[in-house]
Amino acid sequence: MEIANRMVTLSCDGTDGWDVFYRARRMKESGISVTELTIGEHDIGTDLNILIEMNRSAQAGNTGYAAVPGTDELRETVARRINERTGVSTTAANILITPGGQAALFAAHLAVLDPGEVALYCDPYYATYPGTLRAAGAIDRSIECIPENNFQPQKSQIQAAANGAKCLLVNSPNNPTGVVYDKNTWLGIAEVCVQKDLWLISDEVYDSQVWEGEHITPRSLPKMEPRTLVIGSMSKSHAMTGSRVGWVCGPETVITHLINLATHTTYGVPGYIQDAANFALNQGSKLEMEVAAPFDRRRKIAVKLIAMQKIIKAVPCSGAMYMMLDIRNTGLTGEVFANRLLDKKNIAVMPGESFGRSAKGHIRVAMTVDDERFKKALEELLKFAAEEQTKS
Amino acid sequence: MEIANRMVTLSCDGTDGWDVFYRARRMKESGISVTELTIGEHDIGTDLNILIEMNRSAQAGNTGYAAVPGTDELRETVARRINERTGVSTTAANILITPGGQAALFAAHLAVLDPGEVALYCDPYYATYPGTLRAAGAIDRSIECIPENNFQPQKSQIQAAANGAKCLLVNSPNNPTGVVYDKNTWLGIAEVCVQKDLWLISDEVYDSQVWEGEHITPRSLPKMEPRTLVIGSMSKSHAMTGSRVGWVCGPETVITHLINLATHTTYGVPGYIQDAANFALNQGSKLEMEVAAPFDRRRKIAVKLIAMQKIIKAVPCSGAMYMMLDIRNTGLTGEVFANRLLDKKNIAVMPGESFGRSAKGHIRVAMTVDDERFKKALEELLKFAAEEQTKS
Repeated sequence: MEIANRMVTLSCDGTDGWDVFYRARRMKESGISVTELTIGEHDIGTDLNILIEMNRSAQAGNTGYAAVPGTDELRETVARRINERTGVSTTAANILITPGGQAALFAAHLAVLDPGEVALYCDPYYATYPGTLRAAGAIDRSIECIPENNFQPQKSQIQAAANGAKCLLVNSPNNPTGVVYDKNTWLGIAEVCVQKDLWLISDEVYDSQVWEGEHITPRSLPKMEPRTLVIGSMSKSHAMTGSRVGWVCGPETVITHLINLATHTTYGVPGYIQDAANFALNQGSKLEMEVAAPFDRRRKIAVKLIAMQKIIKAVPCSGAMYMMLDIRNTGLTGEVFANRLLDKKNIAVMPGESFGRSAKGHIRVAMTVDDERFKKALEELLKFAAEEQTKS
Repeated sequence: MEIANRMVTLSCDGTDGWDVFYRARRMKESGISVTELTIGEHDIGTDLNILIEMNRSAQAGNTGYAAVPGTDELRETVARRINERTGVSTTAANILITPGGQAALFAAHLAVLDPGEVALYCDPYYATYPGTLRAAGAIDRSIECIPENNFQPQKSQIQAAANGAKCLLVNSPNNPTGVVYDKNTWLGIAEVCVQKDLWLISDEVYDSQVWEGEHITPRSLPKMEPRTLVIGSMSKSHAMTGSRVGWVCGPETVITHLINLATHTTYGVPGYIQDAANFALNQGSKLEMEVAAPFDRRRKIAVKLIAMQKIIKAVPCSGAMYMMLDIRNTGLTGEVFANRLLDKKNIAVMPGESFGRSAKGHIRVAMTVDDERFKKALEELLKFAAEEQTKS
């Protein structure tokens, strides 16, 4: 009566850094005022009008099983959004609605990976990635994206890692680094995917949060549409994190299989949530820009403050809700820095080590508190770094 | 760039019978009045007070990520309900909240099965079962529960099937048969599970719909608690099918692993839905009895009508929303019967063949239209059976 092996190996690295997060939560619960710059949760809730539409739909009687692939309306709206933004011909048949982006990630990997096959991902990575690949029965293999390359994977690296691999998972705009992959990176990724016959799983949940450069979807590159599964979500773009609604966009044949998989693994997404998501998307880009704007403002605040000192260096934050800060001049590891910062200043940030090996000596700052508090916290953080450097 | 093998083998039997269902849906869409007695969807929606509570929670700002294991409140309420009903000591630590019963079933199998291991289930079966086991990477092996045994698995059968198996999936009250397993059946199941060291996955989503006999949970039997994972859901008990909220109840160590799995595969359930579910459960058994009552009424209507003729025999319906009717006296297969009934009388029922080999020569009638319409449809169905028998 042993438990499945996958359960035991789900988390076997990189999770220690999360102690800071849990410690901060406990401090807060015990009444201590902690500034949490840890996770990707907006400081606003879901827009009231979206919730009103959800309630309208539910009270109108839309409480029975929704179609497993998603409602026709939401699938069509998501397809139209992707069409308009990427220029790649997309219809409802290319879309499966999922109970959140994480479920979409898992489903996409289940769709392309047989047990024991090798799945590639980029380090630093969003915390769940390696475990998600292992949950799908894969052997996870990371590509180290180092600060010197602005945390972007190099063609030669992907090529070297791709031998015997079945798929590659990428994420731009990137969590945790805030980096937006440039054209050159994408061309390298696409070239290797075609050359090595890889599936590409492209997590684009931050596609509405781009401050510099432009968001490129690899699905739009030559020969990539048939081998690319794009992960989308309402969480970050519409501050609907708790509503758990996302999608996979891909070739119709794969989506047909994914619908069948969904029938056997999740059985759809609440219809009233889909109606709310459909309403939200139909508000157009104005609402998305409103949700995204605070992060751009705070990013500018941070850039200004960081420019006034020389100890901490910022990785250029071009997108998403995070800044990655290089704290190596303090002589501390990310983990020691984060823990000491929490103890001395009641400010919680994530050690780079929580996101893999490549971001060691860094910390990730989530820009998820109001501007004034964010500015104060950044000032404190920089003061703390100066104190630590003097000591060393 | 092959798709994963699991995707291709997900559905490879038993699905043809579903043609009737889809054909009925298309007829309805084209404006034909069809009486659908096909799927387990209540003819009522979710109670308005539950939806009001959901809206209250959402508008109060409960729209961010909920705790992945489920809210403390809902986990505690579910644990208390199980405690009260089964007498087995249960706390929040024994409960993982999932996005629906189907997701709970899949997670439970992922937790205990390594790829290539053998998973047992009982035929006739709920439509997704074999595919769910295959999605988890297992080799599915069925135990044929024949009409002569009132569709209940016999100890000797389970014993014979259990060699080399890792787990057994059972479902009582049963979909599709409406049978409630008796004490003797449960004792046999428990004995083999202990003897052959099997995990038992017990799908109890119909536990609030028992008309004759009593619902026994195998978790309450000697030595079974450490090896039993119980699947629960709000769908059937509270007419919340569309809300996708359910749970796994099991040993704390397994639940801890399942929480970790959920972090990597679903990332929780909307907090406002959990608040609605918590509210619904706290209404106590009165609401559950209200939701269940129509099925008991309709069952009695059907039993009376069936007693007035001799062609069709009813499998004693002791629970759930379904009746299984033995139509072998008509000389037709379930599939021919169902298709012809749809064409001639605009009544849609499910062929027994949709649910495996053991229910051939049967049809499943879902008691999911109002009493008057249900009675009329049953009368028509019995008239149709008499006409068919005369012909043969």
